[in-house]
Amino acid sequence: MLDKVLDAKSVAIIGASKNSTKRGFQAIKTLKKDGFEGEIYPVNPKEDMILGLPCYKDITDIKGPVDLALITTPARTIPGILRQCGKKNVAGAVIIAGGFRELGDKGKELEQQVVDAARETGVRLIGPNTSGMINRKNNLNLVGIEDVPKGNIALMCQSGNMALTLITEASIRGHEGFTYYVGVGNESDIKFHEYLEFFRNDPATRSILIYVEGMSEGRKFLQEAHKTSREKPIILLKSGRSATGKKSAGSHTGSLAGMSEVAKLAYERAGIVVIENSDELFPVAETLSSQPPVKNNRIAILADGGGHATIAADLLSDHGVELPELSEKTKAKLRKILPEAASVTNPVDVAGGTDADPSLFADCAKIILKDPGVGGLLVVGLFGGYGIRFEKSLAIGEEAAAHRFGKMVGKRHKPIVVHSLYNSYDSHALDLLRHYDIPVHDSLDISCKCVASLCKYGSYLKTHQTKNRFEFNWGAKAVPDGRTIIENALNEGRHVLLEHEAKQLIQLHGAPTAVGQIAADKDEAWEIAKSFNGDAVLKIVSPDILHKSDANGVKLGLESEKQVKTAFDQIMESAAAYNPNADIRGVLVSPMAKKGLEIIIGTKIDEQFGPVIMYGLGGIMVEIMKDVTFWVLPVSPVSCKRMLEDTRSSIILDGVRGHQGYDKKSLRKLISICSELIEAYPEIQEMDLNPVLLYEDGLDVVDARIILDK
Amino acid sequence: MLDKVLDAKSVAIIGASKNSTKRGFQAIKTLKKDGFEGEIYPVNPKEDMILGLPCYKDITDIKGPVDLALITTPARTIPGILRQCGKKNVAGAVIIAGGFRELGDKGKELEQQVVDAARETGVRLIGPNTSGMINRKNNLNLVGIEDVPKGNIALMCQSGNMALTLITEASIRGHEGFTYYVGVGNESDIKFHEYLEFFRNDPATRSILIYVEGMSEGRKFLQEAHKTSREKPIILLKSGRSATGKKSAGSHTGSLAGMSEVAKLAYERAGIVVIENSDELFPVAETLSSQPPVKNNRIAILADGGGHATIAADLLSDHGVELPELSEKTKAKLRKILPEAASVTNPVDVAGGTDADPSLFADCAKIILKDPGVGGLLVVGLFGGYGIRFEKSLAIGEEAAAHRFGKMVGKRHKPIVVHSLYNSYDSHALDLLRHYDIPVHDSLDISCKCVASLCKYGSYLKTHQTKNRFEFNWGAKAVPDGRTIIENALNEGRHVLLEHEAKQLIQLHGAPTAVGQIAADKDEAWEIAKSFNGDAVLKIVSPDILHKSDANGVKLGLESEKQVKTAFDQIMESAAAYNPNADIRGVLVSPMAKKGLEIIIGTKIDEQFGPVIMYGLGGIMVEIMKDVTFWVLPVSPVSCKRMLEDTRSSIILDGVRGHQGYDKKSLRKLISICSELIEAYPEIQEMDLNPVLLYEDGLDVVDARIILDK
Repeated sequence: MLDKVLDAKSVAIIGASKNSTKRGFQAIKTLKKDGFEGEIYPVNPKEDMILGLPCYKDITDIKGPVDLALITTPARTIPGILRQCGKKNVAGAVIIAGGFRELGDKGKELEQQVVDAARETGVRLIGPNTSGMINRKNNLNLVGIEDVPKGNIALMCQSGNMALTLITEASIRGHEGFTYYVGVGNESDIKFHEYLEFFRNDPATRSILIYVEGMSEGRKFLQEAHKTSREKPIILLKSGRSATGKKSAGSHTGSLAGMSEVAKLAYERAGIVVIENSDELFPVAETLSSQPPVKNNRIAILADGGGHATIAADLLSDHGVELPELSEKTKAKLRKILPEAASVTNPVDVAGGTDADPSLFADCAKIILKDPGVGGLLVVGLFGGYGIRFEKSLAIGEEAAAHRFGKMVGKRHKPIVVHSLYNSYDSHALDLLRHYDIPVHDSLDISCKCVASLCKYGSYLKTHQTKNRFEFNWGAKAVPDGRTIIENALNEGRHVLLEHEAKQLIQLHGAPTAVGQIAADKDEAWEIAKSFNGDAVLKIVSPDILHKSDANGVKLGLESEKQVKTAFDQIMESAAAYNPNADIRGVLVSPMAKKGLEIIIGTKIDEQFGPVIMYGLGGIMVEIMKDVTFWVLPVSPVSCKRMLEDTRSSIILDGVRGHQGYDKKSLRKLISICSELIEAYPEIQEMDLNPVLLYEDGLDVVDARIILDK
Repeated sequence: MLDKVLDAKSVAIIGASKNSTKRGFQAIKTLKKDGFEGEIYPVNPKEDMILGLPCYKDITDIKGPVDLALITTPARTIPGILRQCGKKNVAGAVIIAGGFRELGDKGKELEQQVVDAARETGVRLIGPNTSGMINRKNNLNLVGIEDVPKGNIALMCQSGNMALTLITEASIRGHEGFTYYVGVGNESDIKFHEYLEFFRNDPATRSILIYVEGMSEGRKFLQEAHKTSREKPIILLKSGRSATGKKSAGSHTGSLAGMSEVAKLAYERAGIVVIENSDELFPVAETLSSQPPVKNNRIAILADGGGHATIAADLLSDHGVELPELSEKTKAKLRKILPEAASVTNPVDVAGGTDADPSLFADCAKIILKDPGVGGLLVVGLFGGYGIRFEKSLAIGEEAAAHRFGKMVGKRHKPIVVHSLYNSYDSHALDLLRHYDIPVHDSLDISCKCVASLCKYGSYLKTHQTKNRFEFNWGAKAVPDGRTIIENALNEGRHVLLEHEAKQLIQLHGAPTAVGQIAADKDEAWEIAKSFNGDAVLKIVSPDILHKSDANGVKLGLESEKQVKTAFDQIMESAAAYNPNADIRGVLVSPMAKKGLEIIIGTKIDEQFGPVIMYGLGGIMVEIMKDVTFWVLPVSPVSCKRMLEDTRSSIILDGVRGHQGYDKKSLRKLISICSELIEAYPEIQEMDLNPVLLYEDGLDVVDARIILDK
């Protein structure tokens, strides 16, 4: 679908210029300099010729077909120009201009006009507010950054400066480069997920690198990401974490975490390698582009000195990578070729063994990679610098080792990553490694992160997620009584269900909760209460009193007739004092739940990802330890299981300190029911089940709150 | 004290050689090449002349005084050579050879002989197993790394490769360098803290950079660090975290965390800037050497594009740095000079305002740094590259801005750190910044870490720690009855105090605990129990049954005569079944403690730092959430207060969910008592108060366990 846009064979430059400081000049210059393999058509009513190319008054004057238009003129001119493009049957347009929604309401209106023109004409839009796009396969460079290195990484960026940063970094590293770059800009027409789909289908692209600040269709993106990451790795940095944290919504669920936590977890479950340090973004993409993923999360370190080995072991452990014991056979073989002082356990330290002949590195690597318990190798230290630091002639041995390293990766399908202090020096051995696509870094931290990413991606490829399809619509159906509850509320102009309504709704879908009954007077209250096998709870029922406790509208543990009746009167009095105009529907009388483990479950509509669910142990665990997890809805039964394992405190479910454990099956079922409800009743904006009391057998939803869409 | 060693005016090379691959040749060559300002005396019985210098048969043959000897000969020769050095009154010796304690028992013995020889002769030792030392002030380079950049950082390293890494990095960055480098090696004579004291007193040294794997006298180091960090910053990376984690001891306290957590917290409380990524080590030292610390933890960001600003804001927030609102006055002034699209809130985004004249960066910086709410400035983006990327003539404006940046730092005493995409390009503006000691980085992550370190160090300088002296000996005294308890146990050959003994001991020092009494039979048990105002607890008393619960030796909540007597019989039976040969001293009858908040307090002797204390909320918080803190003992009353604030769950102490809060004063007093006990009874190896029950008023030490030194 985007082929004609991103692989355009002809491009019109609308706003072409003879002024060398203008974008309309630079674009043509770069296209010519980079050797764009298609046609270039400058368009400017005032010029005849620009940079040796005939200039057209109007895009419709061009004889041949035009696939893509680069529009460099100001924001207000865009809708008109798009209509012209439509007449010419142009497939896509890159809109550089800013001045749209980022400027507020007025810009928003103009942006809508642009989108409308695109819909009308069928022209697909990149941007607006973008630095442009580059196709490095046919040298369609519409950005004006020169010398963009060619390679197999597709890049999507929501910041021109970050694109420039990554391209500059690639140029300096000088080995890996790009298939495409797209500045997604305001994403007003073509979205992240559409580019993603295109890059998945592009055989030249081996990994996809994304810098995102916020995406408009997160759910569709996750769906495409899920499909894509089975085939090629996606590496992503999401910024704006701190800002989003502040914007936490008013409800309990919303205020628990910046919604970025939702994003991070959702991305990771879709197989995306999420990066938090911008330094690691390009190196990780480069590594995942070129090296096979690690299948067993087990890495061996080969070092020529203690310090680097120790630091690398620390860092890999921090990243959750295992450093396995080497087999006795491997150790014996290493002992044979290394000096006595060497360490043949993992990390392996050659302890001077390579001083006379660094080709010994390759002998060690061969032995280590043959060990079936080892999934990949990290070489740390001075490799590539022996010829520089010690003695020129040693370079020969290093070069021999480099050739052998290169071949080993292909043979064993296990990756090698090299840390070398001499990465920025002129080392032929290191150049050879790069020739074999073996990543070389002078940063130990980055080397370890690259190795860890190979492990993470390799582990992902083995998870259940790759087997299941990722679907957003599961066909959950509303029940007629449920619809009635919601419509009653909406007809009354309410956007909050009363507690008993919320409980009825979840009960209709199979969740165990003691709804109770509404009493109009104290005698009725006692009639209801005495039918319980235990204590009763009384709560005010009023659409005008949402925070029942604040209004002293809740009384717990009521046993006797006197207690129940007194409680009723007190509640009514307090309610009247709290809000004399409140519409009081009565008092809800329900049985007091027995003690259990407090659980909190909440749902919310996330700006980017739509419905999400939060789960955690209630009380102190959620309030103080913030030990909760977020999942994008809907969730499968398998996901419910994983969800329970996601929080640290979930160990408690299995029983600690002598407890036999809790009914996890019921809990998983309750989460599934929430997932179902959110799909079946799209009006539900927020749902808070807090607390749910979990028992050794069964559970009880003690309080429920449901907020509907306005 | 170390002056004659580290500032040696004459050096003998023992093991001098004509063979260019030998250390005894390279050292002389480097000393000559670097222009060592003192005398060089090659020593080798077989040579007459080396590299144009007369060679001596023996160090005692040298006429003039010899301050320092570099010994390049093998391990076994060292003790003899040291005795020769002693005769010549040599102040210090650098011992390169490895092959000592790192090789096990045999090496350990040889190392002891070396230490003995040093003590005997008064020769101070650097190493053994070191890459050497460098004094860059008089060019005494005993390492053989050439072109070590000169500057104001003193470097201590426990890995030759890490020293090489840091020196190489400094060379590549090309601005900051070193006063001294010391490879501390096995630290068998001169210790970390002695070097630290020397560097503190060296006026040319402005910051101290340390890579440590493990130190032998951690307590003395902390004491010196505490003194030093008030005067100059210490930057430290401790590796071997993951390895130590595994070696967790058997006791409860020991297994809670890798002892590295102890180290990190102890270092930080001594004002040390602890680094975890080796990439950040040198840049942070460079920054702390050259820029004033931030006094109020508040940083403004100045950017020329969205992406970098957003990422920097995220990273600084992650590091705990505040991004304050700018004052209305500041915003108004910025608005005057910046285009409409610019953001004048923090982060400030010039939005193209600097495109025509980058000197506007300095105008913005001036306005921002004048804001009293701003403690320092981080500039991110393309600064320094406008002349490269856009138009050559723009370099003039950048250079003007660079000059003004340089002067601003001095005038306002507020730091500036610059992130520039063009750091590795040839940019005169960036060279000017470096000339003014303004750090420039192409990594956003590292730039943010540098700024965060300035904030952290600035905040430290304002803490109570800088006001109090850091003392290890507080003069806590044993009481005679306490000594008796310990000596009784030791006389019986026991290394564990029985529960009632442990409780008596802490009670003697003022801790509230219900010791109870030992009953020999069930009648006696009931006699004791009935005197309580409430339920009783019975526990087996036997030096052979330490895990009382495992032996079914504990019965709780006993009310009636029948319950108490039955419990007594059951305990005796279970004990006999558990260990028929156990020495049973009776059954401890104590009052059942009322419910309270579970607290755990433990002490332990840390390998590096001696006695340390652990504090946390007990039960699930400690077992599952691992939410505990560690402090090196002794602790002051003020430290006890901070300790309580150190864990996340400590909020609970102040009262949550309607609770009025707990008796923190009693808890602090209990911690002080533990601190006192550890000092007063040096036999105590480990102490576990678990649980302590804390009440709204008072507390009760419910179980106590004390292990004595073997």
